[in-house]
Amino acid sequence: MSDVKFNAIVGQSGGPTSAINATLAGVIRGALASPDIETLYGAFNGIEGMLNDRVCNLSSLFRGNDGDIELLSKTPAAALGSCRVKLPPPKEEKSRFVYESLFSFFKRHNIKYFFYIGGNDSMDTVMKLSEKSKEYNADMRFIGVPKTIDNDLCGTDHTPGFGSAAKYIASTLSEIVRDCAVYTVKSVTLVEIMGRDSGWLAAAAAYPSLLGEGRGPDFVYFPERIFSLERFFADIEAGFCKKPNIVVALSEGIRFENGTYVGESAQSGALDVFGHKYLSGAAKVLENEIRRKFYCKARSFDLCLPQRCAGHLMSETDRIESLLVGSEAVKLCERGESGCLICYERHNDPYFVTCSPKDINLIANRVKKLPDSYINAEGNGITKECFEYIRPLIEGNVDITYRDGIPLHYTIKR
Amino acid sequence: MSDVKFNAIVGQSGGPTSAINATLAGVIRGALASPDIETLYGAFNGIEGMLNDRVCNLSSLFRGNDGDIELLSKTPAAALGSCRVKLPPPKEEKSRFVYESLFSFFKRHNIKYFFYIGGNDSMDTVMKLSEKSKEYNADMRFIGVPKTIDNDLCGTDHTPGFGSAAKYIASTLSEIVRDCAVYTVKSVTLVEIMGRDSGWLAAAAAYPSLLGEGRGPDFVYFPERIFSLERFFADIEAGFCKKPNIVVALSEGIRFENGTYVGESAQSGALDVFGHKYLSGAAKVLENEIRRKFYCKARSFDLCLPQRCAGHLMSETDRIESLLVGSEAVKLCERGESGCLICYERHNDPYFVTCSPKDINLIANRVKKLPDSYINAEGNGITKECFEYIRPLIEGNVDITYRDGIPLHYTIKR
Repeated sequence: MSDVKFNAIVGQSGGPTSAINATLAGVIRGALASPDIETLYGAFNGIEGMLNDRVCNLSSLFRGNDGDIELLSKTPAAALGSCRVKLPPPKEEKSRFVYESLFSFFKRHNIKYFFYIGGNDSMDTVMKLSEKSKEYNADMRFIGVPKTIDNDLCGTDHTPGFGSAAKYIASTLSEIVRDCAVYTVKSVTLVEIMGRDSGWLAAAAAYPSLLGEGRGPDFVYFPERIFSLERFFADIEAGFCKKPNIVVALSEGIRFENGTYVGESAQSGALDVFGHKYLSGAAKVLENEIRRKFYCKARSFDLCLPQRCAGHLMSETDRIESLLVGSEAVKLCERGESGCLICYERHNDPYFVTCSPKDINLIANRVKKLPDSYINAEGNGITKECFEYIRPLIEGNVDITYRDGIPLHYTIKR
Repeated sequence: MSDVKFNAIVGQSGGPTSAINATLAGVIRGALASPDIETLYGAFNGIEGMLNDRVCNLSSLFRGNDGDIELLSKTPAAALGSCRVKLPPPKEEKSRFVYESLFSFFKRHNIKYFFYIGGNDSMDTVMKLSEKSKEYNADMRFIGVPKTIDNDLCGTDHTPGFGSAAKYIASTLSEIVRDCAVYTVKSVTLVEIMGRDSGWLAAAAAYPSLLGEGRGPDFVYFPERIFSLERFFADIEAGFCKKPNIVVALSEGIRFENGTYVGESAQSGALDVFGHKYLSGAAKVLENEIRRKFYCKARSFDLCLPQRCAGHLMSETDRIESLLVGSEAVKLCERGESGCLICYERHNDPYFVTCSPKDINLIANRVKKLPDSYINAEGNGITKECFEYIRPLIEGNVDITYRDGIPLHYTIKR
């Protein structure tokens, strides 16, 4: 601890989650308690705000304001705004302007600590800035703080935001299954779940199925397994032998053996800025296949945005851990860590997590898939091991504040 | 009160809701407390179960079992199963077999009281049975107990199930609006809401908009107003002058001036058994129009089944009132009422409801629309009067029991 104080900045990046503000609240708590940090700035829309000098003073906004920090931690979707900016390769000459602009911003605001709350693509930003800082002789520290409902970051047991998304998906699927069971008419209901390259959220859809007959969907399909229309039809046929209403959950990222996405035929094939294909519509494609094959009622829908923003059904475990990872990020940064992602380590009996830093170069731009042992032999459901992995992450209910019948949220004014 | 005891039967019909089991729980409580009722039977899948003698003994299942009744009241989707059977016209000769089969079932089980929990189409069943009972000299009483998320039943201030659906829709839209606001990229997000002929649920989507700037969707469209693509484009253009992210909610039932549904172009035009057109896809149609007109990011999705089965976000007001209407139905039946629907009467300051019977002939097969005074002059939002109508119906949170991280439900075994 020194008498010289520096400033810090925090930004949020990538897709929103229900818990990304809990992590922000954790960083704010950490910064307010830190003897080293004078002011914590919040960048509006992540790196975009740093490029355009659009920031707010989070220290003055939240100092002595525990109630607001608590409300922020229960508010879904990035309160500082987000972005999907990918920084240019640091070595390219034409990228110079961007990095000069960013490091001049850091210098102007006397910023030493940089916290970036985001997923896979956002860690790419942390990695590049960390690399580039040597060139600018910037005495700075760069910390990635994980956030993604996809749970596909390497190096961490799970990601902040996954538990809440998983709780919402598991609960909603258990309700949909009850809804679909009320009629005696033969029907197939297909629910599309987020998860481009990994089946973690689809696994959450399968979670209630392990709680007993009729609690969850009948079949769930993952991007980790090749999707075969023949096996799918065989599953549905076997399902109809037992009952008239079949519920299927499937990841948006399922692909046929030739590598094409099942949903691709319903899409334009456009790419996002990170080169990923826009996906949606796998369930719609299969709905039509079911109708053609079985001549029965078929319908499909996409859980879509509520998966990542249904703050009213946050997991309390996720909220508490997200607060923790935020404040631990500040502590580890003070101790000299840089160029790292703060990761969860899981401990069992009883379950709890600790936080530790891991080299960001080993994490950015990589994807953690569902382990083989988490998917059943038929490739259409999860194993008990996967269920036990998910269970503690979705346990606990957040005491949401309601006003006028709907959840109250915290807004950071621009 | 007499020493002679009779039996009663209850069935659930039409689309599931989050509160339809709360009403069933109310009927069970009422029947267990009734000095006139020996046994309350539950018919599986409504009238289908009565035609096939598929029933259970609810009295023995729930007597002395208050905890299970309570859990049932918090369990979404018809626990007895439902049906979409429309009884044939009573006067047609070929319908004789159906009614003979039903009245022989009633006689065989010594059933005097008939309770049917359902919406518009289900009240048609109550009306026909009531009419036909005179022909069979059946000393029976037929009571309709309202249920529909659509809130479109005449004669009642609102319907059991609407408050919970409205709370879910209003809360979810307020979350979606936060999610969409995180990026600076121009975008339009369109959310399709249930409501074939009336805009009550779309009004619930508009509800958070009256709580302040950025709390709810920017524009909401109702089936009560002719949908004009020109006015819609003008709204979006005006919206873009203020901010980059526009959120639109729209009822599945919106139509162009020529009477065709906006969603019709995306559909097959098939009819359900009640002669209603299957709808969906209005949001998808408009998503494509937006992309063509504004060259911006556009996406659409349908809130679909969770609107009617998201029991985890029930309105406590709705649950309590649904229990009440169930037990009041039994009391009013005992007092001699028949051929009626049990309706809510609203009292204000403080808000509460009382229940009273209304002639089912004046209610069945009719639709209650949003009053003119509930829709704003521009036809793209609600008025304060509508907001005040909805507010008490969505207030209060149900103390849901969670196990293994997801809501616990009650299952009636077959």
